[in-house]
Amino acid sequence: MTHSASTGPTVYGWRASGNCYKLQLLLDMLGRPYRWIDTVTTAGATRTPEFLALNPNGKVPLLVLEDGRRLAESNAILCYLAEGTPYLPDDAWDRARTLQWLFFEQYSHEPCIAVARFIARWLPADHERQAELPRLRERGAVALDVMEDHLAREGWFSGGAFGIADIALFAYTHCASEAGFELPRWPGVAAWLERVRAQPGFSPMIA
Amino acid sequence: MTHSASTGPTVYGWRASGNCYKLQLLLDMLGRPYRWIDTVTTAGATRTPEFLALNPNGKVPLLVLEDGRRLAESNAILCYLAEGTPYLPDDAWDRARTLQWLFFEQYSHEPCIAVARFIARWLPADHERQAELPRLRERGAVALDVMEDHLAREGWFSGGAFGIADIALFAYTHCASEAGFELPRWPGVAAWLERVRAQPGFSPMIA
Repeated sequence: MTHSASTGPTVYGWRASGNCYKLQLLLDMLGRPYRWIDTVTTAGATRTPEFLALNPNGKVPLLVLEDGRRLAESNAILCYLAEGTPYLPDDAWDRARTLQWLFFEQYSHEPCIAVARFIARWLPADHERQAELPRLRERGAVALDVMEDHLAREGWFSGGAFGIADIALFAYTHCASEAGFELPRWPGVAAWLERVRAQPGFSPMIA
Repeated sequence: MTHSASTGPTVYGWRASGNCYKLQLLLDMLGRPYRWIDTVTTAGATRTPEFLALNPNGKVPLLVLEDGRRLAESNAILCYLAEGTPYLPDDAWDRARTLQWLFFEQYSHEPCIAVARFIARWLPADHERQAELPRLRERGAVALDVMEDHLAREGWFSGGAFGIADIALFAYTHCASEAGFELPRWPGVAAWLERVRAQPGFSPMIA
């Protein structure tokens, strides 16, 4: 990990966010230098006028290239950084399947598992949003079922090989226990998590 | 529009769904033959054992190629079908920006505007989910604000030109009034909707 390099892109990110962690994982696996600017959502750092000028949608992660160009949306950033590397397939169909899982992650997985983790871990025990947890856990379990079903047939999510769809899905699956999911219920998923951790350049979440 | 061709891919889709309409729009603009199999979510057609065998995530649209290969997730399907056409840029940065808006659409736009439309249009007036509408409309307005902000600087969402991010965002923006959004509040968005409607091959939603 290189966080103070004068070369390479800058990531605005919160270390405890799975969406931000995706970029740490890919950049570390690629061995690319980058600068990380801690931007803590729960401290309001994404709602300041300065940050909203960088990303009008007020979300991290945000990638800023050395020439100042900016890119938002974690999975779009993964695609951009992985282009031309083994983490994003060249073959059109394998690329399409990778994108399928990237969109699955943002639509059917993250809004349940990441949101449940946020409520369970950061909001007070008497917060009204605690009432959302049963429904989020029910829908999150369906997402894990879909992953388990896929892993019964294939070892990875990125068009037959390890790649950015695995990185994206790892981000919030590996900490799903913090959201109240009992991962041993999904043994294929649990085994896949270990295979991801064994990838060269893997770095744990800093939380 | 060609719905009975013996060549071309098959789309399982519900005509009233914006996610499905995206594929109709792109295929019609490309002038590609395709077969459309009506799969009405509200009638339970995505929860049958037959459909779940095709897509374990139980969602439409689903693309089935002539050789039987299957692809889910509307925006992944758009990317696959648009590859090599003017609707998906070749340039790496323009492609990244297109993907940014595709992920924005699925994370920050569709879960508010499409869900509000579903509740307002298909659920009974005394359904408990009607209580979600104020919050969905508040968050949907933020998504429309982000689009308006972008359209103050650029004419399109797909890396400087019209393309699949415009198609994806058009799908639920054009019918946002059914979800309770007053589109004249966003004049840049309203003007962009008209520019999309003027694209060659444009076909209206069949609802």
